[in-house]
Amino acid sequence: MTGAAQTLRKLVTVITEAQLERDLIKEIEGCGALGYTISDARGRGDKGVRASHWGHSSNIRVEIACDTPLAEKILSRLQEKYYAHYAIVMWVQDVEVLRPDKFR
Amino acid sequence: MTGAAQTLRKLVTVITEAQLERDLIKEIEGCGALGYTISDARGRGDKGVRASHWGHSSNIRVEIACDTPLAEKILSRLQEKYYAHYAIVMWVQDVEVLRPDKFR
Amino acid sequence: MTGAAQTLRKLVTVITEAQLERDLIKEIEGCGALGYTISDARGRGDKGVRASHWGHSSNIRVEIACDTPLAEKILSRLQEKYYAHYAIVMWVQDVEVLRPDKFR
Repeated sequence: MTGAAQTLRKLVTVITEAQLERDLIKEIEGCGALGYTISDARGRGDKGVRASHWGHSSNIRVEIACDTPLAEKILSRLQEKYYAHYAIVMWVQDVEVLRPDKFR
Repeated sequence: MTGAAQTLRKLVTVITEAQLERDLIKEIEGCGALGYTISDARGRGDKGVRASHWGHSSNIRVEIACDTPLAEKILSRLQEKYYAHYAIVMWVQDVEVLRPDKFR
Repeated sequence: MTGAAQTLRKLVTVITEAQLERDLIKEIEGCGALGYTISDARGRGDKGVRASHWGHSSNIRVEIACDTPLAEKILSRLQEKYYAHYAIVMWVQDVEVLRPDKFR
């Protein structure tokens, strides 16, 4: 892409239980993230059907576009805090962002 | 990324008609997927305005993070089964996942 | 991936204010996009808590899978039209699409 002011960033996606929303946001903001996007979701994870009541949005999908050190910090903190006891999956992708000053 | 236990996987995204949800999930699980995430969506596809009633979530957005052979199996099966008769689009991306044992 | 008829495309993701939906769609279609997917979202952007009323979907998440020239056209037009006055963030990723004739 040759568009204006594009820079490579990381996009962190977290799928987890809806009940964790407020707590998760505190963690993400505590890491220094300037923005995040949350959507309701449903599905099935490795813990089986626990989160798959049809038509019920018991999961959330959280996205954070940020630089690599912040992405690593977020991943480490969420892994430490939630992996043992909650249904959570996370993945990371490379993205080109416009207006990268928006993303630390 | 140098975070703990990251491994390259494929993220398959499927956008299709909401009425296909149960059937699609059966297909995806039949392929061997251990998890998937579904969100409600709306939009317009190549079949025109069919799915674009404003404010109405007539589409679903399904994500499956998995290894390459499983991604190919899912893509082939869904293509075979739905492409001729339904509004469906699919794309695949590389993602780094944490805890890759969660994703076959 | 070696699946049938896969081709590299760009996936443009736009996160912005829900009130812009109709106008944004006109712009995207005006650029020549054949399809797009919209989900409701909530979150926080660089303009602070403005869009983060808990449980309220005041944002939208719009995805367009398209070729590189169209992606650049969309990014430029949306940047020109909305960046000065609205909460909007955009990022671009490489994706492999099936049935690439669906995506200009």
